[in-house]
Formats: sequence, structure tokens, C-alpha cells
Amino acid sequence: MNYKSYISENQEQFLSELFTLLRIPSVSAKPEHKDDMVRCAEAWRDQLLASGVDKAELLPSAGNPIVFAERIVNDAAPTVLVYAHYDVMPAEPFEKWNSNPFEPVIIDNHIVARGADDDKGQSFIQLKGFEIMNKHDLLKCNVKFLIEGEEEIGSPSLEAFCEANKALLKADVILVSDTSMLSKDTPSITTGLRGLAYWQVEVTGPNRDLHSGIFGGAVANPINELCKLIASVTDENGKITVPEFYDDVEELSPREREMMAQIPHSDENYAKALDVNALHGEKGYSTLERTATRPTFDVCGIWGGYTGEGSKTVLPSKAFAKLSCRLVPHQNHETIAELMKDYLEKSTSSAIKIKVESLHGGEAYVCPIDLPAYKAAEIAYAKAFNKPPLAVRRGGSIPIISVFERVLETKTVLMGFGLESNAIHSPNENYPIDLWLKGIETICYFYEEYSK
Amino acid sequence: MNYKSYISENQEQFLSELFTLLRIPSVSAKPEHKDDMVRCAEAWRDQLLASGVDKAELLPSAGNPIVFAERIVNDAAPTVLVYAHYDVMPAEPFEKWNSNPFEPVIIDNHIVARGADDDKGQSFIQLKGFEIMNKHDLLKCNVKFLIEGEEEIGSPSLEAFCEANKALLKADVILVSDTSMLSKDTPSITTGLRGLAYWQVEVTGPNRDLHSGIFGGAVANPINELCKLIASVTDENGKITVPEFYDDVEELSPREREMMAQIPHSDENYAKALDVNALHGEKGYSTLERTATRPTFDVCGIWGGYTGEGSKTVLPSKAFAKLSCRLVPHQNHETIAELMKDYLEKSTSSAIKIKVESLHGGEAYVCPIDLPAYKAAEIAYAKAFNKPPLAVRRGGSIPIISVFERVLETKTVLMGFGLESNAIHSPNENYPIDLWLKGIETICYFYEEYSK
Repeated sequence: MNYKSYISENQEQFLSELFTLLRIPSVSAKPEHKDDMVRCAEAWRDQLLASGVDKAELLPSAGNPIVFAERIVNDAAPTVLVYAHYDVMPAEPFEKWNSNPFEPVIIDNHIVARGADDDKGQSFIQLKGFEIMNKHDLLKCNVKFLIEGEEEIGSPSLEAFCEANKALLKADVILVSDTSMLSKDTPSITTGLRGLAYWQVEVTGPNRDLHSGIFGGAVANPINELCKLIASVTDENGKITVPEFYDDVEELSPREREMMAQIPHSDENYAKALDVNALHGEKGYSTLERTATRPTFDVCGIWGGYTGEGSKTVLPSKAFAKLSCRLVPHQNHETIAELMKDYLEKSTSSAIKIKVESLHGGEAYVCPIDLPAYKAAEIAYAKAFNKPPLAVRRGGSIPIISVFERVLETKTVLMGFGLESNAIHSPNENYPIDLWLKGIETICYFYEEYSK
Repeated sequence: MNYKSYISENQEQFLSELFTLLRIPSVSAKPEHKDDMVRCAEAWRDQLLASGVDKAELLPSAGNPIVFAERIVNDAAPTVLVYAHYDVMPAEPFEKWNSNPFEPVIIDNHIVARGADDDKGQSFIQLKGFEIMNKHDLLKCNVKFLIEGEEEIGSPSLEAFCEANKALLKADVILVSDTSMLSKDTPSITTGLRGLAYWQVEVTGPNRDLHSGIFGGAVANPINELCKLIASVTDENGKITVPEFYDDVEELSPREREMMAQIPHSDENYAKALDVNALHGEKGYSTLERTATRPTFDVCGIWGGYTGEGSKTVLPSKAFAKLSCRLVPHQNHETIAELMKDYLEKSTSSAIKIKVESLHGGEAYVCPIDLPAYKAAEIAYAKAFNKPPLAVRRGGSIPIISVFERVLETKTVLMGFGLESNAIHSPNENYPIDLWLKGIETICYFYEEYSK
């Protein structure tokens, strides 16, 4: 069967089905979207049923419902478990979007919407690839779908769900489409992901906002102090100063550094695309090493005091920040969460109070490239893109992948089809339609290869 | 005449007149209150007319209208110019108020409303003191009123207005009720005020919010960098590191330090009232020295990145802060504004862009205690409070006072009746009614003394 022409002929239909999902504002971080989460899960179930699965249902979890579906073609055949998530990041800041984030539009052959890539767009590639094989009786392995609604808030309910449903989720390999390729012309498969630790910090100075003229100079200002704390977490070489932070970080071998250096990359173009005059990071490492193999410390948000128009003078009572670290293999996110909490608490001036709350975390992951499913994926990309894919470690985190390994004892292959320019988590998230279609084609080749 | 009993008998009437003003949300920092500014100016004009002035009118300025009124009883007599402001600080954060900030209420014998003290409550003391003297034919000097609507945003239009209206504003002394006393039982007159410089800073990293997993580690995070910048402005001794910042700061003489040490003050009570475990400030100075005689650096507001619920991971494009310095005599606020701007710009990493905007400023002021009006004020306080007032330098800023000195060549006496516990610029701003009435009584004594 010529997958490519079949996909091309059905493109309008596929897009319209995806748009149904993109229109649902399934923002897991915000309680006001609770009903949208259920609506989105139901929409997924209906699309799965339409794709010809044996069954598809919503299963309860401690949080948002989990969509489960399966198609068992042969009890003796291997089983693929497709993991995806139906929740999306908040769309703020809304004013930076050129269109409504929850009303998908096509602009210059790109789908533009929150979730266009992460992960509605990408997980739809999995669904459509499966559907094509299934409807044409070409599917020779069993396929299960596990689609959760809390990935963007750290999958707080999924580990317990996996523990409780090991038999249901039994599979030979897990497939995930939620990562990026190096470029449209440089197919790549992600073989390593960074972990994550995330904290919210609240510092309290005086018990009320004070007049900065009357009290200023004698009372610790929580914003000044929070800035000092945050500044102290990294040194002048971009290294994290938290004691024991690097204890479990493995240094890259010369061989690995050599391989990474072969990945097509230009610092100049990278900087130009972001409109920055200079790149910035840990001394002694290249950009790709910094983003893929080294831990980081990024403040994701900060607020406190007067943030309106004009010049209100105030010595505020409180200040807040959301802090995050990307972690690398062997760093335990719970250990890191504790180390940072201890460091911040111990470094805080006695003149202010601090509350450090660990909000979410996950381990880093590395995928072996001799896995049968990895090899099938490699061939599938090569067929669709006319070029063998590079194996690369990437900077993003999908914390649940290491949970799968631990609880389900199953390896994951990250068949991602995103691009850095897709602006996931950012305003104007988008997805090039041609790449989306090529992704579907790749999944068809994968099933063909994997069943051989 | 027994002022005290007259004031007590008319208390309800006086309060109801003040409440009319407090109900108008004359927030100068916010453009949406433009109409309220005019309404508030008109309300002042009407109350002045009712107090028996010869004329009262709204005069145009480059910004909000200025209320001017005068009562000339005798061309040969000295003239007092009362300066006040009808604008107030924004009431945010609203959720911390126990009542509507613009619907004054009386709780435990305190007036509670935005402006209850600063400056509607205090300036009403001036109005009522004048009215009592005027209506009973006891006023032996001339009185002018100058009430502006932009004090809380740095009086941007008043200097030009003074330049253009020198004859109209001609006076022998300026009276201002916009400062605090040490306590209800320790009357004091402020003889020194700190100056102010205020900046808004915008730092820009990448041209859009980025995924902190994909880009984190290689791209400067504007929040991290802003925190480093802010942290670098003060050192471990609480000194400001900006080059030349202290060049014009006069060290206190041993005599001055001795006098300040006599002012009743307890660090323990001060800390307890603010619910902080420790005070914090420039090494080598006492709390009163820190707040009254030393310059400061306080961040008044900061914001950037994701500030909603939950744990969105983002490497933001921008971060912002509102910075302020209180200044002391001889420090020129324009020089300081430039020094800080230069420092911040030069200290910024080449990986981010910075924009530093000077929003407002004013010089410090010192009042000579041998001024006839100061001496009259001293006697007036002693009569009303049964205790001679202490002369103290205070931390707040009324930038326009030094403009009066320069442009109108007139000294100001700061007959303030506030208290630190009145929570000006903060939620639940309030004013004890008994102190308010005693203030009115003091103004009556002042006019009596000043005309002798």
C-alpha cells in the first residue's frame, strides 16, 4: 500500500479530526478547566473507537481521567503501548498570540493552536498511523493506547495508575511521540531526556506591605532577598552552587562529545533565531551539550510587590518564584528537590521567612539503540525522510518515561516529530502540515518493520 | 476660645466632610481614574469655599488640575501656604483590605480607607484648623492653599506650575501635613526627609517564551539575570555597590548620632510589630539612623514568566522590576538616577538586553529649627499634646519640598500628624480619630502663635 498517497488524499479529514481536539482548552494546570479535561478525554475515546480499536474507555485516576484503548490482533504477537497526553500547557500570555490558541487555524501551511505539537498534534500522528494499518488489515502486532491528562503538571496520578494496572498495560515496548527532531531535513530520534525538579518559593518579610520611605533601610525587603537567593544558586561559570548537586552527574566521555559535535548545529543561527546577542550557559560545554547533557537552573516565574503602572513605592510583605532544574541521568529528582530546599532554607537571611514547596519532578531517561523497536523506528524514519535518523540526547523532560521503566519494566522509544520552531509551551505554538503527514507515514512504516 | 471642645462638638460634621473626599478613588498612578481626579479636585474646591476662603479654583497643569485657594486678611501680615495632595496610592492588593478602600468606615475609633492618613486625612486637619480660626475671626495671617493631584507619582507637573505662578504662591512659609510623629504620646516634627529615585527595568532574553527543557542551559534566562543584577546592587554589609553612589552622602556627626539615640525606640518592639525575626540593614547604623539618614535600595515590584497556578516550565522572554532608592541630603536624584542606570546597563550580561527608565525622583530636605514658623509649630504641638515635640529626621520623601525651596525660595515646616501604624500605602490604611482631632487643635494653636 502507498501510505503517502493515501495520507495525502485523506489530509482534510485528518486535520478536521485533529481540530476537534485542539478546540478543547484542556489546560491541566488550571482548576477552572476541570470539565474541559473530561470533554477532551471523551473526544479521544470517540476518535479511538472510530479508528477501529476493540475497546476504548475512560478509566478513573486520582486526577483527570485516563483514556485506555486496545486492539489485540494476535495474542502471540508483540504488543506496542502508545503513551500520549491530552492536556496542554496554559496559553498565557494570550496577548502574544496572533490567533485564538483554542481556535486552530492554518497559517502558511502550519497548524497554529495550543497543543498543535505538544501533544495533540504529535499524538494524533500515532492514532492515524495505527488507524491506517488497522483499517487495511496490515496491523500484525497488538496496540494499546494510554492517554493521560496530567503530563504538563508532572503526571501526579499516573504512577499509581500504572502500579494498579500492570496487566492491562503489559507491552513489549512503549511508543511516545512528544519530542523534537533536529530539523525537517535532519530526522532524529531522541535517545535521552533530561529529568526535572520544580519548586515554588514564597518569601515573607514584614507582615504587611510597608512604606519604603518610612521603613526602607531597616527591614529586609523580600524581593531583594529573593533575588539574592536566586542569584546565589549559580556562580560566575554558570555552575549550580547547591552542595552535592553534581554528585551523581556523569561527565560526558570524549567519544560522546565527539558524536555530539557531529550533529548539525550553528551557534550563530541559533542565537539569531532567538534574537539574542550572545548565548549563555555553563562554561566548558557546547550549546548541544548544555541543552542535552547538563543540568540547569531556570526561574520559570517571579512576582511580588507593585506590578501595575507608574511608580508606587512599597516595601512588600511577600515575593514568590517558580524555580526549575533540568536533570541528567543518575540524578534523582527527589534528592535534588531536597538538596535545593535545604540550600534555599539555609541561605535565607534570618530577617525573612521562606517556604519551599516541591511541585513536580521526574528522572532523566536513556533509550538503548539496539532495542528491536528502536531499530524498526530507525528504518521507518529512513523510509519516510529518505535519510537515516540521528540518535540524539535532548534537553526536554517526560518524567513519566522513567516511571514506565521502573513500574512497567518496559522501555520507551521516543518517535518524536516536533521541531524547536514549533514554539511548544509558547505563544503561537504551531506544526508544519507536511511534517505532520510525514509523521503519520513514518508510523505506518514502523508497524510494518516492527512486525517483521 | 476653647478649640478642643469646639472640635469635639463638631466631630461628626468634620468626619462626614472628610468621608466625602475619601469616597473618591483619586488614584493618580492609574489612567482609568482620570475623571476621579477632577471630581476630587472639585470636591476640595467646594470644601475650601465652604471654609470661608476669598476664592478657590481649579487651575490647569500639564497633568491633573491643581486646587488653589486664598484668604487674605491683611496685606501686611505674613502669609502661610498650605501644600497638600488630593491623590492617593493604588489600593492594591484589594484582597488584603478588610473593607472597601474607597468606602470609609470607622473601626475601633479609627477611620479606615485609602487616604485616611495620606493625605486626605492629614490635609483635612489643615483645612479644619484654618476654618475654625477663619470663621471665628481669629485668623491674623493670610493663608493660601495649593492642593495637587500628582504627589504619589512624583509631582511631575508641579515644578512648572510653581515656575509659572511664583506671585500667586508667594508666602513666608509653607505648611505640610503629610508626615508621621514618633507615636501618639511622643509628638515630633519632621525636620528632614529623604529624597527618592525610582526606575523601571525591563530585561529581554530570547524573542519569545521558550521551552526550558529544550533551550534551558544555553540561553540566558531574563529572570535569573535580573535577580543577579538586583542582588549585585547591595553587598553583604547592606551597602549599595553602585560606583559614586555615596559620594555626596554626609556622614552623621557624633552629636547627631547622640541626639538620634535619645529618640524613644525599641528594635524588639519594632520587629515584633512587623512580625519579623530580625531587622536588616546597612551595617554600622541603628534602625533610626538607617531609616532617617542613610540611603537605601528597595525593589518595589518584580514580575516575569509564569505566575499562575501549578508548575508551567518556561524560559521566559522578559522580566521586569521597579527599583527605588531613598536618598539623603546632598544626593542629587538626577545624578543618582544616571549612576544606577549606568551601573545596571554595564553590569548586564551581553546575553540579555536591558532598558532602564527613570520614573520619578526628588531631593532630600532639611528644615532649620530656628524658623519662626517652626517655633510656632513647636509651641502648638506642646499645647495640644502636653509635651514639647522632638525634632526628627525621617525616612519618607516628599520630593516637591525641595522644589519649593529652589523655585519659590520658601522653607517648609512639616506639621505631620501621622503614625507608622496608620499603614499608609498599604492595605487597611487608617487614622485614629482622637489623633485627627488633636491635629486640628494643633493647627489652631499654630495660627494663634504664628501671628503673635
